[in-house]
Amino acid sequence: MKVGFIGLGRMGGGIAGRLQGAGHELVVYNRTREKAAALEKAGAKVVGSIAEACAGREVVVTMLAHDQALEEVALGAGGIRGALANGAIHVAMGTHGVAATRALARAHAEAGQVYVAAPVLGRPEVAAAGQLGIVAAGPADAVAKCRPLFDVMGRRTFEAGADQSAAAAIKLANNFVLGCAIEVLGEAFVLAEKHGVARALLYDVLTDVLFACPAYKGYGDIIAKQDWDRVGITARLALKDCNLALAAAEGVEVPLPSGSAWRDRLIGAIAHGLAEKDQSVVAVAQARASGLG
Amino acid sequence: MKVGFIGLGRMGGGIAGRLQGAGHELVVYNRTREKAAALEKAGAKVVGSIAEACAGREVVVTMLAHDQALEEVALGAGGIRGALANGAIHVAMGTHGVAATRALARAHAEAGQVYVAAPVLGRPEVAAAGQLGIVAAGPADAVAKCRPLFDVMGRRTFEAGADQSAAAAIKLANNFVLGCAIEVLGEAFVLAEKHGVARALLYDVLTDVLFACPAYKGYGDIIAKQDWDRVGITARLALKDCNLALAAAEGVEVPLPSGSAWRDRLIGAIAHGLAEKDQSVVAVAQARASGLG
Amino acid sequence: MKVGFIGLGRMGGGIAGRLQGAGHELVVYNRTREKAAALEKAGAKVVGSIAEACAGREVVVTMLAHDQALEEVALGAGGIRGALANGAIHVAMGTHGVAATRALARAHAEAGQVYVAAPVLGRPEVAAAGQLGIVAAGPADAVAKCRPLFDVMGRRTFEAGADQSAAAAIKLANNFVLGCAIEVLGEAFVLAEKHGVARALLYDVLTDVLFACPAYKGYGDIIAKQDWDRVGITARLALKDCNLALAAAEGVEVPLPSGSAWRDRLIGAIAHGLAEKDQSVVAVAQARASGLG
Amino acid sequence: MKVGFIGLGRMGGGIAGRLQGAGHELVVYNRTREKAAALEKAGAKVVGSIAEACAGREVVVTMLAHDQALEEVALGAGGIRGALANGAIHVAMGTHGVAATRALARAHAEAGQVYVAAPVLGRPEVAAAGQLGIVAAGPADAVAKCRPLFDVMGRRTFEAGADQSAAAAIKLANNFVLGCAIEVLGEAFVLAEKHGVARALLYDVLTDVLFACPAYKGYGDIIAKQDWDRVGITARLALKDCNLALAAAEGVEVPLPSGSAWRDRLIGAIAHGLAEKDQSVVAVAQARASGLG
Repeated sequence: MKVGFIGLGRMGGGIAGRLQGAGHELVVYNRTREKAAALEKAGAKVVGSIAEACAGREVVVTMLAHDQALEEVALGAGGIRGALANGAIHVAMGTHGVAATRALARAHAEAGQVYVAAPVLGRPEVAAAGQLGIVAAGPADAVAKCRPLFDVMGRRTFEAGADQSAAAAIKLANNFVLGCAIEVLGEAFVLAEKHGVARALLYDVLTDVLFACPAYKGYGDIIAKQDWDRVGITARLALKDCNLALAAAEGVEVPLPSGSAWRDRLIGAIAHGLAEKDQSVVAVAQARASGLG
Repeated sequence: MKVGFIGLGRMGGGIAGRLQGAGHELVVYNRTREKAAALEKAGAKVVGSIAEACAGREVVVTMLAHDQALEEVALGAGGIRGALANGAIHVAMGTHGVAATRALARAHAEAGQVYVAAPVLGRPEVAAAGQLGIVAAGPADAVAKCRPLFDVMGRRTFEAGADQSAAAAIKLANNFVLGCAIEVLGEAFVLAEKHGVARALLYDVLTDVLFACPAYKGYGDIIAKQDWDRVGITARLALKDCNLALAAAEGVEVPLPSGSAWRDRLIGAIAHGLAEKDQSVVAVAQARASGLG
Repeated sequence: MKVGFIGLGRMGGGIAGRLQGAGHELVVYNRTREKAAALEKAGAKVVGSIAEACAGREVVVTMLAHDQALEEVALGAGGIRGALANGAIHVAMGTHGVAATRALARAHAEAGQVYVAAPVLGRPEVAAAGQLGIVAAGPADAVAKCRPLFDVMGRRTFEAGADQSAAAAIKLANNFVLGCAIEVLGEAFVLAEKHGVARALLYDVLTDVLFACPAYKGYGDIIAKQDWDRVGITARLALKDCNLALAAAEGVEVPLPSGSAWRDRLIGAIAHGLAEKDQSVVAVAQARASGLG
Repeated sequence: MKVGFIGLGRMGGGIAGRLQGAGHELVVYNRTREKAAALEKAGAKVVGSIAEACAGREVVVTMLAHDQALEEVALGAGGIRGALANGAIHVAMGTHGVAATRALARAHAEAGQVYVAAPVLGRPEVAAAGQLGIVAAGPADAVAKCRPLFDVMGRRTFEAGADQSAAAAIKLANNFVLGCAIEVLGEAFVLAEKHGVARALLYDVLTDVLFACPAYKGYGDIIAKQDWDRVGITARLALKDCNLALAAAEGVEVPLPSGSAWRDRLIGAIAHGLAEKDQSVVAVAQARASGLG
């Protein structure tokens, strides 16, 4: 398929590599061109503008870090909406807010284009291995058309219906559940520690059966070893996700009390200079609130 | 070993059955004698008083529902402390508070007896199958002496040191992490539902990889299907556990903000008549707070 | 002084009336012209565009409902920035966010104009009586120049320095303290009610000495009498203020845990259809969370 | 009237002094006898046991620091219940929990005595001046009989009906509203401070009109001046009150989300060694959670 790809960060690079490897006709664009080098070597055509990455493409995929970047790339001067052919599809695979998702879907529809929200589950190495989970929502025929691409990028695609915001909501709910789980772990480890329990022991107990899954094993291990430099998602990005979840919830009049506890500890950690450490530094804020450190 | 066993509820009955099956010399006592029938048939001796269950025993195991029951059985008139031989061991396997655990340890020590805190991880069917996790703390030689019993009851024993309260803290931390995880799930399911997402879909996404573990699969399924009658732990008992965790944390000057969100929803669910339903009814309180129902 | 005035809602109308009454040369603009009728009768000149309200004015005052309105009126096409003379002053008296305040100050400075943030304390009837509290921040000479206007509008002006965002922060902090106080009252009234205490009695006890002040007497009376139609600020506007306070706090890395409790109850009340009732309907959400209604 | 008085701390001493000054026949008891010296000089009879303070008295007043002290003094060996005449009245004026209040009322009723709960509002200097607020509940004739005593002790008596627990609930609700107000102030002062606002300025704005009452003026001034040694109620005692309010609320199935924010900051302050400072040190915990200090 003729595919454009915009946004070659750690996630985007891995995903684009999968598409290239599968023989799709790939044109890629990234603001800093150097990041496209590996793809170029693999055969992708590297272009210097968003418009070129859209010209003649059936599908343009974006993988961008936040709503503002997406809005600029899609709707700004020289953006996707101005360059994409009638009937072509913009597949946005970043984690985006519900409001931004709605706005994008409307804007593309008004321009005779189709918007598919397809946020992903998994880290860069999972993306590079084509093992992502993908949550896709948008008009059924557009999702069906993208399906071969999703099959190359991921291990499993969850179809979430025609309303793009549902995919956004699912992804935000997933990140919310994860972030709050990490917050709770931070609270529990400090509780146990002040009772003289070694962190490694609590880790073993929790992950033995009840919480024997990647979320708890991964982040629990970081907290147990206080290895805050092993960054999955930074505290700053986690705060962005947290705010997106709270905004998505407010939009449908849902309070998220656990989210506030998570958010407050993230802010506390950032206030102490830990914004670029792993999001599990909520455990550091918890320790400080408990008189440690 | 000559073992006394007090408290033959669903958990206690299963554990005692394992001991009897392994050939230990078992004397059992339960307030309502009928619950001892199966064990009697299997060869255990059923007695009519706590004192008889202690007389001549090397180890007496209790599995009681809350601190008050434990304190009465152990320290009340006609209780364990008055009947247990010098040097004999009281192994308490229920979920008990840190303060009660400390008080019990001291009281037994003053009477020349030994207290081992050994709360368990797992549900009644797991107990009956001898597959529990056991968190044991107490004087090293006493724990070592109990080890053959633990090996019969459980799949794995976590040794938590000489201070009994550490075992209590670990067990409470475990239940805290579980309860908060359920609360967070409740919040997330309602968030997604009000965005038009089917509960089964969010369940699939969450438990696919990141949260592919018994805690999320079990309680997530109850919430997804709104099957509140599938009771693991009742809301009322969960509130007891929550309060024990908060008290244990206060005792070492640790705030647990996520615990407050969990506690408030439990209270809300109980206020609406759901005390005896599964603890996942926090999701019902969350739905109500969001204008549903 | 030659004053332009934009935004003649209930607050703006009262304030503009004070300026007109004091003999200032007033030119007024409101999107819906009818609201200017009373001022016109009193001698003010009513114009049909923002630009006309700015032309030749030394000071232009805005009293607008939210950040978006302010940004459009000040920075949009045909807005204040395009029409105001070099060196002239824009005094914004609405409740605005810290980020918007910063952006406005910068935009006006770049255009050679001066921005003064001067949010007010008091309700419409207080404004009409010239008894407002005013919190003013901006370049010292500009604030000094506005001082005669403030003296006509208000009972007392609090000077908050040269940084406009300080005035915004103070106003948001004030509204935050008020909103949280109302939330706490709602919690307390339900606590007492479920113990059989008449709401009027708790009201009397609280406001007798310790809380004998307008905030508690006013909102306490609404809650005690469940008179939600006596609207000071609607729940929807309170949620806007709450979000502004949380955003202002996040901007300087401050968590506001009490604000989350307030926010969650506001969202809950709105979810139950109470968005346009008085903000004290947090007490209704609290009652519902407690099994009442 | 023949009055016994037990508990001559700062509050009790002031109240007993008022009774003595009004010509009542006073017999007083305090665990540490020295505290009775001033009353003895004023004409009160000082005795060495609780029983002597009860013998032949129509009314015995207690002013004790917490539930445990009250339970020991009233129900312990040599306690009030054993010594008080049939039909005589025990008036408990301390701040006590709802559960303890119920237990005491029942215990005295079973002994043919009458229990009146009459917690007070006001600080020691207010008590010494006879200007307390008194919230009284109990059998109507008993409250009526105590009325002349209340009139000497206080400025105003709020009658809360026959159920003693209502008075306890009102007092706890009052302290809850106060504690949460202090917590909110702490959050607001740090929010403003990190925006460069002087604490004295925010204090002036808040207490100018909206919050012009003793609660905000008193505790706001402590926070503004960071004068934590000016102790009204210690953080430790505030935590006790907070826990009593949460327990009273749980007893009637009411969540108190703002109370959790307050409680967490109290625990945080205590964890940093501030237990004996004024309860407004929640503002110190808030500052620390925001990266200050």
